[in-house]
Amino acid sequence: MAIAEAHLSAKYNRPSHEIVDHFTYVFASDGDLMEGVTSEACSLAGHLGLGKLIVLYDDNRISLAGATSLTFTEDAGKRFKAYGWHVLHVENGNDVSAIDSALKKAKRETSRPSIIFIRTTIGYGAPHKQGTFEAHGSPLGAEELLAAKKALGWPTEGAFLIPDDVLAFYRKSMDRGRSRENKWKRSFKKYGAEYSDLSAEFLRIMKGDLPEGWEAKLPAYPDGSKDVATRKASETVMQSLAPVLPELMGGSADLNPSTFTWLKGFGDFQKPDGPGDRQGAVGAEWNYAGRNIHFGVREHAMGAIASGMAIHGGFIPYTATFLTFSDYMRPPMRLAALMGLRVIYVFTHDSIGLGEDGPTHQPIEQVMNLRAVPNMTVIRPADAGEAVEAWKAALLKDDGPTALIFTRQNLPVLNRSELSPASGLQRGGYILWESAAGKPDVILIGTGSEVPIALEAGRKLSSEGLRVRVVSLPSWRMFDHQSSEYRNYVLPPDVRVRVAVEAGIKLGWEHYVGIDGAVVGMDSFGASAPYKVLYEKFGITAEHVAQAARARFQL
Amino acid sequence: MAIAEAHLSAKYNRPSHEIVDHFTYVFASDGDLMEGVTSEACSLAGHLGLGKLIVLYDDNRISLAGATSLTFTEDAGKRFKAYGWHVLHVENGNDVSAIDSALKKAKRETSRPSIIFIRTTIGYGAPHKQGTFEAHGSPLGAEELLAAKKALGWPTEGAFLIPDDVLAFYRKSMDRGRSRENKWKRSFKKYGAEYSDLSAEFLRIMKGDLPEGWEAKLPAYPDGSKDVATRKASETVMQSLAPVLPELMGGSADLNPSTFTWLKGFGDFQKPDGPGDRQGAVGAEWNYAGRNIHFGVREHAMGAIASGMAIHGGFIPYTATFLTFSDYMRPPMRLAALMGLRVIYVFTHDSIGLGEDGPTHQPIEQVMNLRAVPNMTVIRPADAGEAVEAWKAALLKDDGPTALIFTRQNLPVLNRSELSPASGLQRGGYILWESAAGKPDVILIGTGSEVPIALEAGRKLSSEGLRVRVVSLPSWRMFDHQSSEYRNYVLPPDVRVRVAVEAGIKLGWEHYVGIDGAVVGMDSFGASAPYKVLYEKFGITAEHVAQAARARFQL
Repeated sequence: MAIAEAHLSAKYNRPSHEIVDHFTYVFASDGDLMEGVTSEACSLAGHLGLGKLIVLYDDNRISLAGATSLTFTEDAGKRFKAYGWHVLHVENGNDVSAIDSALKKAKRETSRPSIIFIRTTIGYGAPHKQGTFEAHGSPLGAEELLAAKKALGWPTEGAFLIPDDVLAFYRKSMDRGRSRENKWKRSFKKYGAEYSDLSAEFLRIMKGDLPEGWEAKLPAYPDGSKDVATRKASETVMQSLAPVLPELMGGSADLNPSTFTWLKGFGDFQKPDGPGDRQGAVGAEWNYAGRNIHFGVREHAMGAIASGMAIHGGFIPYTATFLTFSDYMRPPMRLAALMGLRVIYVFTHDSIGLGEDGPTHQPIEQVMNLRAVPNMTVIRPADAGEAVEAWKAALLKDDGPTALIFTRQNLPVLNRSELSPASGLQRGGYILWESAAGKPDVILIGTGSEVPIALEAGRKLSSEGLRVRVVSLPSWRMFDHQSSEYRNYVLPPDVRVRVAVEAGIKLGWEHYVGIDGAVVGMDSFGASAPYKVLYEKFGITAEHVAQAARARFQL
Repeated sequence: MAIAEAHLSAKYNRPSHEIVDHFTYVFASDGDLMEGVTSEACSLAGHLGLGKLIVLYDDNRISLAGATSLTFTEDAGKRFKAYGWHVLHVENGNDVSAIDSALKKAKRETSRPSIIFIRTTIGYGAPHKQGTFEAHGSPLGAEELLAAKKALGWPTEGAFLIPDDVLAFYRKSMDRGRSRENKWKRSFKKYGAEYSDLSAEFLRIMKGDLPEGWEAKLPAYPDGSKDVATRKASETVMQSLAPVLPELMGGSADLNPSTFTWLKGFGDFQKPDGPGDRQGAVGAEWNYAGRNIHFGVREHAMGAIASGMAIHGGFIPYTATFLTFSDYMRPPMRLAALMGLRVIYVFTHDSIGLGEDGPTHQPIEQVMNLRAVPNMTVIRPADAGEAVEAWKAALLKDDGPTALIFTRQNLPVLNRSELSPASGLQRGGYILWESAAGKPDVILIGTGSEVPIALEAGRKLSSEGLRVRVVSLPSWRMFDHQSSEYRNYVLPPDVRVRVAVEAGIKLGWEHYVGIDGAVVGMDSFGASAPYKVLYEKFGITAEHVAQAARARFQL
């Protein structure tokens, strides 16, 4: 709760009794120090001066496949100093008092994160395997284990022996923890008596509940609203929610002016005595009470930090970058899905619709690839109205992450007096429009910026005499979790003339259109041109969708 | 050609005349220095002492969204020194002679890579936008451009003016290049006269052709061969090809003892005077002629380095790690697909079949996600015979990358006297077995370790009187590129009782089984248990496949 408490205490100028003991400890290995995500996170931690972060580095010079002298001979201590860290060394990892003393020093250093290099021997005591990579990934085996016990003067009987004095020591530590917890609770009770609103808010946030009435703050996009990119609609949602959801905190990987994912007026999360040039600051406070995190060009660390914040509690973390760059942060997103964390990933520039930046920046397979992650909710809204609903769904989804997929380009705000309301998004997919009630001849399915294309194709086909249904399907996962009655109502099993349109990879869409349907989408990477040219060039057009439907209807 | 030449010159003790000028230059920005992949690659480059790598760092302290003082205040020079780099500074990026002199120093330093920190002003000369992030991602605009031209004393007429003296200077540089190229060619011709075999091999390798007769070296797995994991079969292929394909070069991300992707007897790619503890070395030479690269726990850099080697030419690079960790290297794999590079990605431990390491290590969505990348060939062979064919296909695929997906667990070597030959893999998918010729009642489709399950289910259903066809479908991309005749022959369009089985995410499989078929696969993350228990628990069994087919046949 360190940050939540620090937040409260900074915001309300309250001293927090227990903050002093609220550290975050990391146990790191040689492999961890080699991975790029560590460099990203540690450079940022140094920049932010996170004095309550303490890394214990198990410096045993052996990784899974061999000695680190094969791969990793940099001066890591110097590297961490370059990041602005406090670097400590313990020469003998079996010297508990030396580790204890280093930890005490690390705790006393409050303006920089600390890393303690602890020299150890892997498989210590195992006479034939210690110091070798054979002690890394495989069990020692019965014989070597016995030899190790003998070498260490440890009783050879009993696979899992806990000596009485060790047990007593650990039990005492439980008592100590209990007493500290009680002390904290008494202190918090006193605080609550004096500041009942703040204490209730703190408890609500730590529980992960949303405040009453938050949904009333969501913006509306009435008929006749002018065209707007869903990334801009998302910005409006975020500004509306920021004051009522103090737990909403995050930022982008150096893309605020493009992703529009700032919380304006809610400060920059920075070391209070940070440097002078504040170009790009969101504004207001510049300290640890700031709710806007500048992650830098570090997508992988951004994803991992968001997971850490969600695990800690007290936050609804969000991240933001271009959808293509979601590839950089797949590992932490997968872990968030596996752990069931409420993290909101905002991804903008969601298709070839981003235009001139070209194929390196144009996502093709990314939306489908996110859909393939178990427990990851992906939502690609069709207009500003659905964008509002998408944010709502993401906030309500408290047992797993949500990826919100927004356009760079402007989209029409769908005329809801002629179409179903955007709240249909809460069921994942819904009948947006149909030319006539009852069983359709043709079903057109679209997501995001391709829903207007499906609508146009539908109206064209209807004018040709076909009974057409247009389905907006912003979230596969949410739709597939509906009852089979609802799903069969939206997509009647015996209507097989189905065309899906999405400016992404076609793979996967047969889930809804089957072998007999058609998918209007991408088979290749994109190209660099204005977005309307690209939609024409790649055939993602209403005429193409209508043709595909006609061809199938005539079969 | 530096490495190819260095290889030739080291291997055959030939001085190479032009090596001295063969440097690799990198233009890097603030963002590049923040990204984790840079840390991984630069730590490794320092370890390897790559003296021919020169980075020019455009140190302008502005990134897309603001000043680097918001995010990136580490002492980057010190960081690179910690990596073992030669660090140079140019205080004024407009001082061409200072840059030239730094480049000369960098070239003279041959035992360490060099980075030149060049202080610049972004948008230099634009009176209102220089030094601001507004000069990063957006055009200056007509007015500011005009003002910049005036401020710099540049003619305001003509959008793209190239002064005559500049043109003359560049033209001269073309002449210089031509003359150097001719000198190199003469020198190479002399070399070829003396060493015709070596020169022919060099030209063949640089062209990307494979040597005559290479396929004859591939191992065979006759009927009766004992069970073997496809990762082990892959190891056998690699050892067989290593002597005939000197261009095959690569390694793993600290996983050689698990991925079995070494080229035994072909040396470790290392700085010749490297450190003492060589645990994990593949053996033979320890210098720049070594063909085994130890990437360390750096998957992202591994993927990027492999792309660089392929672009350079002279290599068929391969990488290796566990399939789950493919998530760490998606960006470079995507670029390799976009650029059409022949890179071979070996991924082992390909499903819940890896067992006890549990859900963090068990790939679920990874195979499907790789299939979704345009121009990426994914091959998941069913047995040792198909593993040999998979390697063959990967080597023959010279206009795009291939991901080879191998098991950790042993698999039976399929009895090819009763089944179709493994060479069917070259068509992506093939009829492995059918209970009777002609139109089947039921088609069962499997990949990799689930093909034996499909076969068992097929035999069970056949014994119940159904006409069953079992299709092995190791590569979707290769199969989808076959003629429609062949595809319809393997999967007759009117046979709709189809069941696919794969120990991965179900999403996508409707491409082959449609809405009316069934997919036996995963909907969730895995779990930690012995692999046979997991297959039972998650229902990936022959009985389950047979049941799904029966249920559909009765409809």
